[in-house]
Amino acid sequence: MAAETQTPPIRFGIIGCADIARKVSRAISLAPNAVISAVASRSIEKASLFAKANKFPPEAKIYGSYEALLDDPDIDAVYLPLPTSLHVKWAVVVAQKKKHLLMEKPVALNVAEFDVIAKACEENGVQFMDGTMWVHNLRTAKMREFLSDSERFGQLRAIHSCFSFAGDPDFLKNDIRVKPELDGLGALGDAGWYCVRSILWANDYELPKTVVALHGPVLNEAGVVLSCGASLHWDDGRLATFFCSFLSNLTMDITAIGTKGTLNLHDFIIPFQDKEASFIVNSKCFFNELVTGWLPTPSEHTVTTDIPQEVCMVREFSRLVGDVKNGSKPELKWPIISRKTQLILDTVKMSIDEGFVPIEIKSQVRFLSTVFGLVLLVCCLLHV
Amino acid sequence: MAAETQTPPIRFGIIGCADIARKVSRAISLAPNAVISAVASRSIEKASLFAKANKFPPEAKIYGSYEALLDDPDIDAVYLPLPTSLHVKWAVVVAQKKKHLLMEKPVALNVAEFDVIAKACEENGVQFMDGTMWVHNLRTAKMREFLSDSERFGQLRAIHSCFSFAGDPDFLKNDIRVKPELDGLGALGDAGWYCVRSILWANDYELPKTVVALHGPVLNEAGVVLSCGASLHWDDGRLATFFCSFLSNLTMDITAIGTKGTLNLHDFIIPFQDKEASFIVNSKCFFNELVTGWLPTPSEHTVTTDIPQEVCMVREFSRLVGDVKNGSKPELKWPIISRKTQLILDTVKMSIDEGFVPIEIKSQVRFLSTVFGLVLLVCCLLHV
Repeated sequence: MAAETQTPPIRFGIIGCADIARKVSRAISLAPNAVISAVASRSIEKASLFAKANKFPPEAKIYGSYEALLDDPDIDAVYLPLPTSLHVKWAVVVAQKKKHLLMEKPVALNVAEFDVIAKACEENGVQFMDGTMWVHNLRTAKMREFLSDSERFGQLRAIHSCFSFAGDPDFLKNDIRVKPELDGLGALGDAGWYCVRSILWANDYELPKTVVALHGPVLNEAGVVLSCGASLHWDDGRLATFFCSFLSNLTMDITAIGTKGTLNLHDFIIPFQDKEASFIVNSKCFFNELVTGWLPTPSEHTVTTDIPQEVCMVREFSRLVGDVKNGSKPELKWPIISRKTQLILDTVKMSIDEGFVPIEIKSQVRFLSTVFGLVLLVCCLLHV
Repeated sequence: MAAETQTPPIRFGIIGCADIARKVSRAISLAPNAVISAVASRSIEKASLFAKANKFPPEAKIYGSYEALLDDPDIDAVYLPLPTSLHVKWAVVVAQKKKHLLMEKPVALNVAEFDVIAKACEENGVQFMDGTMWVHNLRTAKMREFLSDSERFGQLRAIHSCFSFAGDPDFLKNDIRVKPELDGLGALGDAGWYCVRSILWANDYELPKTVVALHGPVLNEAGVVLSCGASLHWDDGRLATFFCSFLSNLTMDITAIGTKGTLNLHDFIIPFQDKEASFIVNSKCFFNELVTGWLPTPSEHTVTTDIPQEVCMVREFSRLVGDVKNGSKPELKWPIISRKTQLILDTVKMSIDEGFVPIEIKSQVRFLSTVFGLVLLVCCLLHV
């Protein structure tokens, strides 16, 4: 905490006035090491209204163009909640302007695009982090302790993750997440992002060997996924399944099963309450003698915190930005995790498009790297 | 209750002294309309020890052969917990001896075998029921009310079901459930039976159109499934997934997601306690204004009962047997449900064997009916 007070707070600019930016704005204002410095929209009126509605500090600047904000030397970091299709374009400019980048998920329309973003961040020495909040919850660290406990949990064998919510008719017709030109991965990129992240998280971010989409995804008329699922497979027999949907009731479950323990929770993305969060631990439970009940029964663990998870996220991102400003290298863990998540999404989509065939992640990595390499080569040749 | 006291209690004979028979013996002794009349084992000593250990009434008869028990005119119904491979042989004899049949699951090694059992029961006018206890729990009726509520739950869209437990080295080497000649379907037939039943239950027993096994099942050296999963698909986009295993920690989850509500429980097969059971209902929950919490949060419903679920099962079976003794026809709902469950298990196994291909249930029904028809034809020809 002493270091936090010594380093000046990280000055955030917000590009775009999406709904989610309201929550992140609040988080920036609550984080002890961050401050809102500016907001930009293509319409200055919209930016102004957004700043007012979200009680921005009076000294926060209002910009009528993204470029103007990015040219402001008093901005350290940018929060980018634009539609996914615009990520690669603006993220690269953000990095080139030497601003650190906190970006909404999915990070890109595909891994090749994300690689362009990650490369721009690396070349310009700026920190990258995606806006997945739940991994920063104090509860998540406590759950990790359980999953890492060889006595209480053992080795992970299977995990099921689910995130669905029922979009209303307006959402299903007009939201950017159902438009192929804005958010081409639909429910897979939006809800599925969290499922895949939770699966990777439980597997210590070890990529699966194979990914297979489940039959029967629901697509809209434009071909955007509204509901789908997949299974992921590791060489040692570990299995993961997930289901994501815009067409069913709000549900966000993780069930992670180890050789000795099981973890359950029903609010992994947005905790039921923002200052406390629980999970259920079943460790070496078994049946009583006549198999008419359990001994012991699973127990609920509650973690209380004064700092909501989105504030933890901004605090951690700002801490890393502060480190970079003080001479450290950017923390590569975060773009690596983002890339792995995006890679699985791409692979699920590919499996859907190819008729639910299993797709090996290794060949996929190689294939995409080759494509990406070729694209880069062509770009270089065109520029030279 | 008045009717129950007027009809004499149903007199049960137990064939085989399996572990599960201890629990069902207790249930028979606790059910108000049933009584234990006899137990048979291939060894009379074993039967005698079993009767003593389980505090059978002194008037209960002890038999050293299954045939002797089946010839006893004072037995109304038989509980059959033999290894699955012996079901078809003994179930047919039970029916031919005009005894009603309560039989452990899986009901047979495959649907064709089960059809022989069901036919024998039908021809001999005896009631059939399989030993799936949880469907008789009072909680299950309450959960059904929720799933049937078009306002609170809406239409079912997806269900995930899981049953796993970690078999110890002795279990994995010696239990009848890992022996191809005794219980050929392994974890699929044992743990998977419950998952499939829960999926059918949530779907009002409507069969899916297609079944696809998940990649990566674990088989033992003899080819018996120790761990596997599958997805099930209906024409209207409904999806079900399940995971069953002998290789991971005790877990028994159902998550059923409708258009307006979600049902969760973590003890669907054996409730944590035998006289009360809970489930979690999330009905039209959504986020608060800043998306930092839920409004309302899901609620837990607890059902208390003096009668454990296995006693409810025996009571219901005995009630139906009483009805048949009083001139009614056997209730066909139960063998129909058993057959559907077995059919899905067979289809999952077929999908595994054929390389995880999707298998249509309709063609499967037709194919098996044809095979069964041919077998029957041959049998008839041989007898004529």
